[in-house]
Amino acid sequence: MTPTKLFRRAPLALTLMGACTGAALAQSSVTVFGVLDLGVQRLTNGSKSVSLLSIDGMQTSRLGFRGTEDLGGGLSASFHLEGAIGPDTGAGGDWRRRATVSLASTTAGEVRLGRDYTPTFWNISRFNPFGTNGVGAASNLVYGFDGASGSAKTVVRSDNSVGYFLPGGLGGVYGQAMAAAGEGSTGKYLGMRLGYASGPLDVAVSVSDTTNTAAGDKFKVASLGASYALNELKLFGLLHTSKQASKKQSNWVLGATYAIGKGTLRASYVSAHLTNAAPATDYKGQQLALGYVYALSKRTSLYGTMSRVSNSATGKYLIPGGSSVAAGQGSRGTELGIYHSF
Amino acid sequence: MTPTKLFRRAPLALTLMGACTGAALAQSSVTVFGVLDLGVQRLTNGSKSVSLLSIDGMQTSRLGFRGTEDLGGGLSASFHLEGAIGPDTGAGGDWRRRATVSLASTTAGEVRLGRDYTPTFWNISRFNPFGTNGVGAASNLVYGFDGASGSAKTVVRSDNSVGYFLPGGLGGVYGQAMAAAGEGSTGKYLGMRLGYASGPLDVAVSVSDTTNTAAGDKFKVASLGASYALNELKLFGLLHTSKQASKKQSNWVLGATYAIGKGTLRASYVSAHLTNAAPATDYKGQQLALGYVYALSKRTSLYGTMSRVSNSATGKYLIPGGSSVAAGQGSRGTELGIYHSF
Amino acid sequence: MTPTKLFRRAPLALTLMGACTGAALAQSSVTVFGVLDLGVQRLTNGSKSVSLLSIDGMQTSRLGFRGTEDLGGGLSASFHLEGAIGPDTGAGGDWRRRATVSLASTTAGEVRLGRDYTPTFWNISRFNPFGTNGVGAASNLVYGFDGASGSAKTVVRSDNSVGYFLPGGLGGVYGQAMAAAGEGSTGKYLGMRLGYASGPLDVAVSVSDTTNTAAGDKFKVASLGASYALNELKLFGLLHTSKQASKKQSNWVLGATYAIGKGTLRASYVSAHLTNAAPATDYKGQQLALGYVYALSKRTSLYGTMSRVSNSATGKYLIPGGSSVAAGQGSRGTELGIYHSF
Repeated sequence: MTPTKLFRRAPLALTLMGACTGAALAQSSVTVFGVLDLGVQRLTNGSKSVSLLSIDGMQTSRLGFRGTEDLGGGLSASFHLEGAIGPDTGAGGDWRRRATVSLASTTAGEVRLGRDYTPTFWNISRFNPFGTNGVGAASNLVYGFDGASGSAKTVVRSDNSVGYFLPGGLGGVYGQAMAAAGEGSTGKYLGMRLGYASGPLDVAVSVSDTTNTAAGDKFKVASLGASYALNELKLFGLLHTSKQASKKQSNWVLGATYAIGKGTLRASYVSAHLTNAAPATDYKGQQLALGYVYALSKRTSLYGTMSRVSNSATGKYLIPGGSSVAAGQGSRGTELGIYHSF
Repeated sequence: MTPTKLFRRAPLALTLMGACTGAALAQSSVTVFGVLDLGVQRLTNGSKSVSLLSIDGMQTSRLGFRGTEDLGGGLSASFHLEGAIGPDTGAGGDWRRRATVSLASTTAGEVRLGRDYTPTFWNISRFNPFGTNGVGAASNLVYGFDGASGSAKTVVRSDNSVGYFLPGGLGGVYGQAMAAAGEGSTGKYLGMRLGYASGPLDVAVSVSDTTNTAAGDKFKVASLGASYALNELKLFGLLHTSKQASKKQSNWVLGATYAIGKGTLRASYVSAHLTNAAPATDYKGQQLALGYVYALSKRTSLYGTMSRVSNSATGKYLIPGGSSVAAGQGSRGTELGIYHSF
Repeated sequence: MTPTKLFRRAPLALTLMGACTGAALAQSSVTVFGVLDLGVQRLTNGSKSVSLLSIDGMQTSRLGFRGTEDLGGGLSASFHLEGAIGPDTGAGGDWRRRATVSLASTTAGEVRLGRDYTPTFWNISRFNPFGTNGVGAASNLVYGFDGASGSAKTVVRSDNSVGYFLPGGLGGVYGQAMAAAGEGSTGKYLGMRLGYASGPLDVAVSVSDTTNTAAGDKFKVASLGASYALNELKLFGLLHTSKQASKKQSNWVLGATYAIGKGTLRASYVSAHLTNAAPATDYKGQQLALGYVYALSKRTSLYGTMSRVSNSATGKYLIPGGSSVAAGQGSRGTELGIYHSF
């Protein structure tokens, strides 16, 4: 437990520190990092509207510590602690975004233990312009069936996991696999993700299988996503299916971003189709989201997003954060916010 | 999310670091800060006495992170995360003292979003010698009617707030306003504070209006406070009223501090008068507190405080932390403690 | 509340920093430190087995902040905040491992206030090879009678404590005493530890007395422990008794470590004997543990431990973390893990 010293009143810039320092860098640093993302939001679910001081419109507010120790011979150990914070109410305290320790080799890859993102999370997060944040998040219509975010374990993260990540230098191929212990209860997870990123193209497939209920019904996710960059324009596409017992949800997402100076336009269309044999259910929903991000710096941006969710006759998809909707009602949200990272 | 690096075993003093560094300071720093304040306390409420390992006798124990990013052109973005800790039991974990992100201009002022102090808090905190901490805190007889600290929302802080602060350079005039969203429930807050500080004088007025109950009864606070410095002597005065439905409380506070070398004497008198139409209530209380603080350094002090609360026939004011009192009973507290900040 | 600055992207090694710095070091530093310890464990209690992503097999996972301020004249103030984290699930948030402020003199010793380890904890922790962590922990058969770890307050730590520590320079004699306030409830603690460490020998005695139940039955602990180093070999021995009302438990522990290059073999035998007049109980248990630790660096180790607990006919001792055992059943555990500190 060799300690890390922090200092009072001694700000230093990177390049200048270089003159005072030298080797042994990797062995002696801890990084503190975080995000605060706050905005004002107007949300209308069905006929009910509410004004909110919203959070996480662009990225989830968080606080974290991480560090890497060079063990020599291409081997390194590292840790990562990261927890969500709720700056609207001051909530915080745990490290449930990620709490892991890793042993990594530049040639053999990384073994990672702890609470971590599932491989199946990353396609939703990476292959649509709004990720899983804000009124325009693709996750509004993907997570947990019916928009009830997080009702299924392992949609985003898993406790008790052992993960493996391919090393770099595989000609653009990247990948990871995860097994998580159920520890005598639910939550046992097996999943993997395999991708290829080269030049303008990034494409990845992921599949997983979770023991999500006491009845033993497996929660299964499969997805295929891609992005392609054409100068200022970037295109995104995602196919995603979720199954559990007699319930199945299919999603597809199309999106684009377009950079104009310090600004970026974002647009996304999400389609959802839920079927369930018991109770008999068959409905569809769609979400259209438009937004603009203006970068005040690399660390700080202002953003605005508008999103509209519509449902078929019995559908109940919505933008989370306000009231529930009656069957077939729609949901509208608008937010203006500031994202600041450190 | 550009990271902040912390270092192991590399302590550095401020002035010396200056030789190694230069520009770009504001863009590259995060500050960790905190207070631990612990003492031993003997508290007698009515006929019941208890010995406590007390906390927060001089300042509230806390841990925080904050930082400012210079955006150029007089504009800056900053964040502040600060949570209370209870070093007697090791409690902690949230950031409910303050969790905000700000965008500030040197000429146009600061817009701040998140959980923050209400404008109406600051007069109680600033214009009496014991602030809101310890057995001599003016808040003992001000907060939440009847001494039930914190029963009214927004007495100290508000969730879901948007605040505005006047810039500096207004010839001593300072001020802030806050609006907080009720988000479909209680807690909607509107408040402001306007002050003038110049030379020995500091004076400020504040008012607020909170939707504090489901019945819609507004909780209203108004206060006027001032301090005046005369060499080693500093005088304090505060008028404070709180109203909700048929309930009204009036307070006034007089106080003084007197510096003698590394020590400071503190004295304060607090008067409280509560009236309530339903149930019919009319009682008065008063608190007299005396204390001494000895500074071992700028960061570390020892302190001792004695305080006595007395009530009229039906009064129930007390020093919090022990038993409740029967109508008309008094409360006495003595504490000796150490305050340490970092 | 003078702040501590942390820095972005400016890693520095100890020796190199020396060239840029000079005096005033102690006054200007805060230390962030921590441990992540994760492994895979197979645990069989009675006839039930479970596979776990285990934590804390070698040391308890934690995050902390600490710092010391030099007040001059041999006097210093310091603080220590340390909380457990559960990297298998991301749990964390409090500072219940330790939350203290200290005033220390090089000649008169240290006074420490807050939540801290009890003096009686240290003999169990220091005088056996597995400490209180992992499947081989001596605490499996010592804590809380019957292996129900932590059922007795103050076994490990106490809230509301005032502690005193002897200064260094007493010819190898060390010691501490603690008094903790019950604050009108249970948990009032009085305890002390006195030891002598010189050359290869370290020996210490400790006793304590806790008001542990509303009935006023005192929880009493007494222990005598020692270690002796013989080149690569280190021997450990501990006698420990716990009493409360009609219940008494006697433990003895023998252990050894043997260093082979970067590796260390660990072995420990723990004996437990519980008697209770009401309900009439008399049983014995024993634990044999073997392990190996391989140091990848000073901060990072891999480890493996095997442990087996057996009981007399009515005994219920076990390795915690899985099912309970029926009377007389045994418990077996195996774990492989990685320990990483920062």
